[in-house]
Amino acid sequence: MMNVTRLERNPLITPADVTPYHDDHEVIGVFNAGVAEYEGETLLLLRVAERPITNNPAIVKAPIIDFSEGEGKLHLIEIHEDDSTYDFSDPRTIRYQDKDSTAYLTSLSYIRLARSADGEDFTVDEEPFIYPETKHEAWGVEDPRVTQIDDTYYIQYSAVSEVGVGVGLISTKDFVSYERHGLMLHPENKDVAIFPEKINGKYYTLHRPVPKGIGRPEIWIAESDNLIHWGNHQHLLGLSEDGWDSGRIGGGAIPFKTEEGWIEIYHAADKNDRYCLGAVLLDLENPAKVLAKTNEPLLVPEADYEVSGFFSQVVFSCGVTLQNRDIRVYYGVADTSMAAADMSVDDILAQLTYMKVPEGGTIE
Amino acid sequence: MMNVTRLERNPLITPADVTPYHDDHEVIGVFNAGVAEYEGETLLLLRVAERPITNNPAIVKAPIIDFSEGEGKLHLIEIHEDDSTYDFSDPRTIRYQDKDSTAYLTSLSYIRLARSADGEDFTVDEEPFIYPETKHEAWGVEDPRVTQIDDTYYIQYSAVSEVGVGVGLISTKDFVSYERHGLMLHPENKDVAIFPEKINGKYYTLHRPVPKGIGRPEIWIAESDNLIHWGNHQHLLGLSEDGWDSGRIGGGAIPFKTEEGWIEIYHAADKNDRYCLGAVLLDLENPAKVLAKTNEPLLVPEADYEVSGFFSQVVFSCGVTLQNRDIRVYYGVADTSMAAADMSVDDILAQLTYMKVPEGGTIE
Repeated sequence: MMNVTRLERNPLITPADVTPYHDDHEVIGVFNAGVAEYEGETLLLLRVAERPITNNPAIVKAPIIDFSEGEGKLHLIEIHEDDSTYDFSDPRTIRYQDKDSTAYLTSLSYIRLARSADGEDFTVDEEPFIYPETKHEAWGVEDPRVTQIDDTYYIQYSAVSEVGVGVGLISTKDFVSYERHGLMLHPENKDVAIFPEKINGKYYTLHRPVPKGIGRPEIWIAESDNLIHWGNHQHLLGLSEDGWDSGRIGGGAIPFKTEEGWIEIYHAADKNDRYCLGAVLLDLENPAKVLAKTNEPLLVPEADYEVSGFFSQVVFSCGVTLQNRDIRVYYGVADTSMAAADMSVDDILAQLTYMKVPEGGTIE
Repeated sequence: MMNVTRLERNPLITPADVTPYHDDHEVIGVFNAGVAEYEGETLLLLRVAERPITNNPAIVKAPIIDFSEGEGKLHLIEIHEDDSTYDFSDPRTIRYQDKDSTAYLTSLSYIRLARSADGEDFTVDEEPFIYPETKHEAWGVEDPRVTQIDDTYYIQYSAVSEVGVGVGLISTKDFVSYERHGLMLHPENKDVAIFPEKINGKYYTLHRPVPKGIGRPEIWIAESDNLIHWGNHQHLLGLSEDGWDSGRIGGGAIPFKTEEGWIEIYHAADKNDRYCLGAVLLDLENPAKVLAKTNEPLLVPEADYEVSGFFSQVVFSCGVTLQNRDIRVYYGVADTSMAAADMSVDDILAQLTYMKVPEGGTIE
């Protein structure tokens, strides 16, 4: 069996540890954090979700940033729970009853830093680090991943608005100021993880489109010369028909390099929206080639903080730290808090099943 | 009123003009052609759709190219029309009854050339020009657009397979040999139209993602340094709530340059799948800025060959030819045949309504 050591201190950061940034809001989630190592500290780029406090339980409020006058301004949509236009059954979203589409989100997410010397005991910054600043982020910024290339950190995150969920790209050298590079991928896409070095002269990223008409939420790979513009998209890894990875899969942590290949810790949900973590091994010289994958998950929701919360039965990683042949996986739990678990690269490799014929690597 | 002169010779090319490439198949559509001017001739890059002939009307056949053994091989799926797993109500597709997704297409499309000295009288090549060659094209290649940059022609087309509809890119200098550049955009996306020159140091393309969860089928714009890798995606033009452009809109012809701005002839469908052509005027120096658009369509399905066919009520352009201030719009009709109509740039400009505040042009 796989050896997974959850930290005793788990959950590491909970909503109670974070003061709301907005007046009359509550923090309902601090989760799905990107991970960076900077000046001897471990940084978590927390996704903080804040929900407007409502004094009338019959009124549902939806927060958006309004850019119609240039500068962004927080605006609260108010909807009566009896309004038959809408479906409130998913706590995360307000959906149109008569169309298969989302009308609003019930919370606004942004990115906030937490810092730790030992990788366990974190102090959360008082102010947001990355906050919605463009019309493509009017519904929030979510689920960052951080790729360090030389002295620059590239932050990939979900940019959410009424026109869709795309992938924003920001770079920073000091986690104080940053540069925006627009949307690196168009909607509908998320779960991007850029590899930390060029491979055969190209940058690579994992990504997870969600097509509407044909196809399923599966993992793709793309290449780039400059990290800003992406092309040569290839389908990389598909769903199974049943089981833990039959609903949706997507990139998780930034891939890390081993002698055996690139290891990617990814997430997979089953048809009941239970999210687990798995691993896939990609060819060192051509990461579009899948060498092996876990047929069973590495980590499943079992601890109480994983099993219950705002959205239950979720473990979801956006980053790991690596020391020799050991990794610490940071992961969001139940769309509520942050946790971490330690495991060894050798244990992960021992869980892998090798492909008979490697997937991917087409002539495209 | 808008002056539109349909060619007397319309429809210019019909399925009867094209011999099937596959044994035991019939040509059901020759439509949505890309347009190029090469060595004094007008070339149409026809989308040819072929359907397997069935001797048993109770059996529906779906053609795919099977790449499981490396080289592609035509394979016919056979499904009984009583099979309750499937929904056959749309003549173009076979859908799963219990999920909102496409199982197969009923025809296989590829790209074939037609050549003309006068732009009206076309001779169709005997063999395909671009045929599915990768796993991302297993269900066909569709709806090409052609952008000439110096002496190279870039062909943008829908690459269709079970993993989704992405956008393939191919370049040619002679319409005999060509080079493949993979998928320039990931699923779900189509209706790409690359601008024919760099603008302020960048290439630009229009594209039309189809998101699943949030957002609608609308027109976006992206930029590139090399035509292969694309980024800085921005939402450009949205649907109206009702009327001719309330269902879906997408790039049509390759944009052409006028003193007043870039003119893009695009398609729009209403909620009943009636496809019309409209125009949008984009800023010469920043094509992410919408200056004006047609509030009423330029061309609506009216002629008999537009109103009825394999999929009725469709006019759909992938390209125009420009001479001074006159354009000839080539367009597919009813997913069946090709037609053309002449109109003047001044008439198009006179139909435009200018934005009070230009759309687009965000700080991203």
